[in-house]
This record gives sequence, structure tokens and C-alpha cells, in this order.
Amino acid sequence: MDWLNNDISGPDQDFFQKALQRQAQLTKPAGSLGVLENIAVRLAAMQETEFPVADKIWITVFAADHGIAEESVSAFPQSVTCEMLKNFADGGAAINVLANQFNAELEVVNVGTCQELLLPKVRHSPVAKGTRNFLRQPAMTGEQVEKALLVGKRAVARAIEDDSDLFVGGEMGIANTTSASACASAILKIDAALLTGAGTGLDNERISKKEKIIRQAVVKHRDDLNSPLAVLQCLGGFEIAALAGAFLFAAQQKLPVLIDGFIATVASLMAEKIKPGAIEWFFYTHCSAEKGHRLVLQHLKVEPLLNFNMRLGEASGAAVAIPVIRSACALHNQMATFEQAGISRK
Amino acid sequence: MDWLNNDISGPDQDFFQKALQRQAQLTKPAGSLGVLENIAVRLAAMQETEFPVADKIWITVFAADHGIAEESVSAFPQSVTCEMLKNFADGGAAINVLANQFNAELEVVNVGTCQELLLPKVRHSPVAKGTRNFLRQPAMTGEQVEKALLVGKRAVARAIEDDSDLFVGGEMGIANTTSASACASAILKIDAALLTGAGTGLDNERISKKEKIIRQAVVKHRDDLNSPLAVLQCLGGFEIAALAGAFLFAAQQKLPVLIDGFIATVASLMAEKIKPGAIEWFFYTHCSAEKGHRLVLQHLKVEPLLNFNMRLGEASGAAVAIPVIRSACALHNQMATFEQAGISRK
Repeated sequence: MDWLNNDISGPDQDFFQKALQRQAQLTKPAGSLGVLENIAVRLAAMQETEFPVADKIWITVFAADHGIAEESVSAFPQSVTCEMLKNFADGGAAINVLANQFNAELEVVNVGTCQELLLPKVRHSPVAKGTRNFLRQPAMTGEQVEKALLVGKRAVARAIEDDSDLFVGGEMGIANTTSASACASAILKIDAALLTGAGTGLDNERISKKEKIIRQAVVKHRDDLNSPLAVLQCLGGFEIAALAGAFLFAAQQKLPVLIDGFIATVASLMAEKIKPGAIEWFFYTHCSAEKGHRLVLQHLKVEPLLNFNMRLGEASGAAVAIPVIRSACALHNQMATFEQAGISRK
Repeated sequence: MDWLNNDISGPDQDFFQKALQRQAQLTKPAGSLGVLENIAVRLAAMQETEFPVADKIWITVFAADHGIAEESVSAFPQSVTCEMLKNFADGGAAINVLANQFNAELEVVNVGTCQELLLPKVRHSPVAKGTRNFLRQPAMTGEQVEKALLVGKRAVARAIEDDSDLFVGGEMGIANTTSASACASAILKIDAALLTGAGTGLDNERISKKEKIIRQAVVKHRDDLNSPLAVLQCLGGFEIAALAGAFLFAAQQKLPVLIDGFIATVASLMAEKIKPGAIEWFFYTHCSAEKGHRLVLQHLKVEPLLNFNMRLGEASGAAVAIPVIRSACALHNQMATFEQAGISRK
């Protein structure tokens, strides 16, 4: 687990300044491209280039099952995790459509479903047959956390091997908003009431039950929640730990990351808590409709790009943001300067 | 001008319902694609199809000069309108980059610059050499309003001739936020203080001066501002009237429209006031950083798609939204249904 503590450098400040200067010379009022300017400038600094790119996108969706599902915290039965894995393999899910639309490389990794499931096009890296029910015992063993983090690290290694410009991480796992909410509650010391949402579609009564279960679990494990890794072990999920490991390794390797919705954001929070500074490599792509998301984003002091009320996971929100990043790059790289165009300044 | 009163039908309700039903069958929690679902469903109803598309996009940028520029209401000199027309012709402006990125058809129409300017790739349809200074007299004659509206109508006719799936209108014209703010103030009966912004980058002192000029102009013409056309005549600009004409004709012809920033939104307001119901054909793509924009959007009871703090015009904000519309269509058309994928329901 030594790799978790490897240094994270910040994006390059010289290229940041150069990119700012270029933005000021493009044929538009200063600042008039709004957040698109910030994106291009940050990406230039991360990629240490004058001309940032978002051509090659690597998307990994991590899937796993959760012991806490037996507490009826999800609107869908646990079998849906595996059914959705088949759907990913068959190309019928939202992320398949979006990856195809944006010509992104999509891989799906099974980090541990209850059912043994070998599928073509799905990488089989199970840590165990689902986590344990964290209302009764820690979700994972210490060894399992390490393994799940490594599954994430290896996905990023493949993305780098493939010369990707950006890494996108997504997740699928029935009951995983319960796990993510519990992790956020433990790490941020915020009561479950503010972090528990409808997930895939619970009614208010069941949200209230889910909230109580999360609160009870955090209380049960309170003496053990003394580090981000311990929080992941007690309350996390294999796909959440894999995402955290992926985000952390991407930051260490200077690979920019697009962060998806609530669960990915909580995983990014875990990464940042494990190694502060990781967040400088992240673009927060959207704020989902899931209740706790806005609050976690506020805690991270980041403003998400899109507010589409999406709440699907699978990296779908981050994928929708891909062309926005590409637009930011294209404008930065291809617009004429005032000098080139012979246009009067203020 | 009889065409302005032609009927506008609403989008087809049967296809709207069919599209809603399809969304409910796709392999995702109901509603979890958020606004992307609304976009697909609305577009299906507009296009009277089960499978909405946004492949062929037509963008027209209307450019013109404003007599009110002589009151120093812009941060840039009036010569920039023509300089930017050259930049459009040379392919160096933001909208060139974005149109190219999204493979959209881009045409630029000169509706009346002060300088006589014939450029390759710029359609020459001048109404006059700029409007008059509306602090002293009406910006246009009645005949000029008609001509400018027709310039817009004809652009949409070309878009339809080209089998476009969507129409996007943009504008360029030094001092045109002053004209747009004045029109909005007169139509909505809202004081200039709430509708006057920095435009291309005025400091607070000059914004304050601009605000007074707008208020003074609205007061000066108050007895004549008794119809949307009269407002356009007294306070409008050729490109604003062209946009209003384009939006109105698109709605009459059932061609969906992407509305850009503050000025395009005010033009859409004029279109809606001329012929209520036009707005049902519009997608509001973004809320700009220009001060009055949010307020006008609120008045129209629409929620814009993006909040990127852009304030460039040229249809640039609408163009950035093109891939979002395309994602909405791709997801709607290509995702597997629960039945196809054999996935358990709630």
C-alpha cells in the first residue's frame, strides 16, 4: 500500500500562466468564454502544453455488489448489478451510447458481484462476492480494501498505457449510494439526514429508513473510523474503493480526471483525504439530483460544470461533459488572436 | 408583414407521449437522465418522430451596427463589428471553431454595418448603414424593421431548404447589449437598472452611464412603444430584429431552435410577444454572465441548460450546447429497454 503515499505534484504553473496569456489574446472580450477558459487553462497546466487536448478519453466503469443491500436500501433488487453488467457487455446502457458518441474507450471491470459472472468485454477482477453488510460488520477486510484500490490503480495504468488524455471513472452497484453516503457522513462528520437521497428511486418512507441505517452504521463503527482507509473498509464498496484508487493514481501520474456524480465525488473525496492535493487533477463535471451531492461538492470547494439533474452513475454525467472539455480545448487552440485578426482592442 | 401573424402549432402531443413512454422503458431509473430526457421528449414532439435527431445544425450569425454606439456604451470601438465580420470570414472566431467542431453549417449575414463591407463567405443583406442613435430618434423606420425581420426569415428558409434538424441564431454588433436591454426594459416594463450589464467589458462607472442612457431612451419613446414591432423600431437593432424574425419563422415552420445568450433571448422574447406560442419551439441553451439575462429567462419561465458564465454572443453558447442535444437524442434512440436487456424492474 506504499503507493498510496506517493507524492502528487501540482499542475505546471508556467504553462498555467502561458495559457492565461493566450486566452487574453484571443478574439473575444476578456473572460467572455467563462468556465471554458478555466477548463482550457487548467488542462494546459496539467498536460504541460500550450495546446491542451481531450481527444483520447478512457472510461472505466467499476461494478460490485454490497452486503448492505439486504437491508432493502435500494429501489431495485441486487440482481440488477449483474443484469446491468450484461447490459454493458451488450452495449445497451447509457454509458455505452455516450462512449460511442464521443469515441471514448470504455472498459467495464467487475470488482466483485455476488453472482460469479464471466462476460466477454467485462474485465474480471473480483475482490470477493460482494462486500459484507456494514450494519453488522465492516464491509471489507483490510486486505480487500487494498485489493480494490489496486483494481482502480491498474485501470489508470491501462489508460496511461493507451496514451489517454483524460481518465473518467464510473460505477454500478445496487445499494452503492448507501455506502457512499455512509463514507461521506463518516469522513465529513455530517449527519446522514443531509447525505441520504433517493438513489435509484426510493420513496420518502424508504429514504427515511435508509437514513437511519446509515446513521446506525456510522455509530456502530465510530471507534474504527480513524482514517480514510478505515472508512472505506468499514463502510465502503469495492467499486468505490477502486474509484478512489484510480483517482489517486491518476493524480500521482498527472493524468487529468473527469469526476462523475455523487458516488464518484465521494470516491474523489476519499482520494483527497488519503493524499491531499489529488483534487487539483480533477474536473467536477456535474451536480446530480442525489441529495448529498451538492453538499460534498461544497465541502470540496468545487463548482460542478453541469446541473442536469442526472442521477444514473455509470460515468454518464462525466461523459456528457466530454464535448464541453473538447470545446474548451478547440477554442483555446484554434481561435485567432487579436493580432492575427487585426482587431482593435479596448 | 402578414407572415408575422401566421399560425404557430404546438409540438405534437402524441409523439410527446410516445417519447415519454420510451424513456420509461430504457435501462435506467425513471428520470435519471434529468434534463436530457426532457430534451429528447420535446424534440421528438417537435420533429414528430420516435427518434429525434440533431445531426444537421444550421447556424446563422447576424451582424449589424448601432447608432447608439456613439454614446460610448461599449468597451470596444464600433469598428470591431466589421473587424469581427472579417474574422468570421477568415474562420478565426469562436463560432467558427465551434461550428467546425460540431460539423454545423455556419453562415454569417451582414444586416447593416456602418462601413460598406463586401466579404467572401459573408452574405450581404444590409438594411441600412447601421441603425440611428435611439437616444435621439427611433433606431429604424417601419420599413427597416420589416426588412430586418425578413432577413431573419430568409435565413431560416435556407436552413429548411438544407434539411436542417435545428436552427441556431447568433449576433455580432458593437453596442447591441444596449439595444437588447432597452427592448427588454420596454417590453417587460422593468427598469434599466436590472437589465444593464457590462456587455463586452464596461467598468461600473460606464455601466451606470449606459443604464441612464437606456432609461432615458425608453422614456423618450414611451408613447410609441405600444407593440413589439414598435419596440424593435424605436430601440432595436437590425441583427436583433433579424433574430426575432428568424425565431418566429422557425416556430411557424416547426423547426426547433437553440437560443443563445442575452441578445438572442431578448430577440426570442420579441418573437414570443409578436406571436405567443413561438417559445414552444425554443431550447434555451445557457444563461450568460450579462446582467439582465437571468431576469429575462425568468420572465419567460424557462430554465437554461448551461451556466458557463459565457458572454460572447455569436451563437457560441448555443453551439456549446449542441453535443448535449445530440447526447439526449443518442441516449433516447440507442439505449436498450428493460425488456431487451432482461433487467428486473423495481
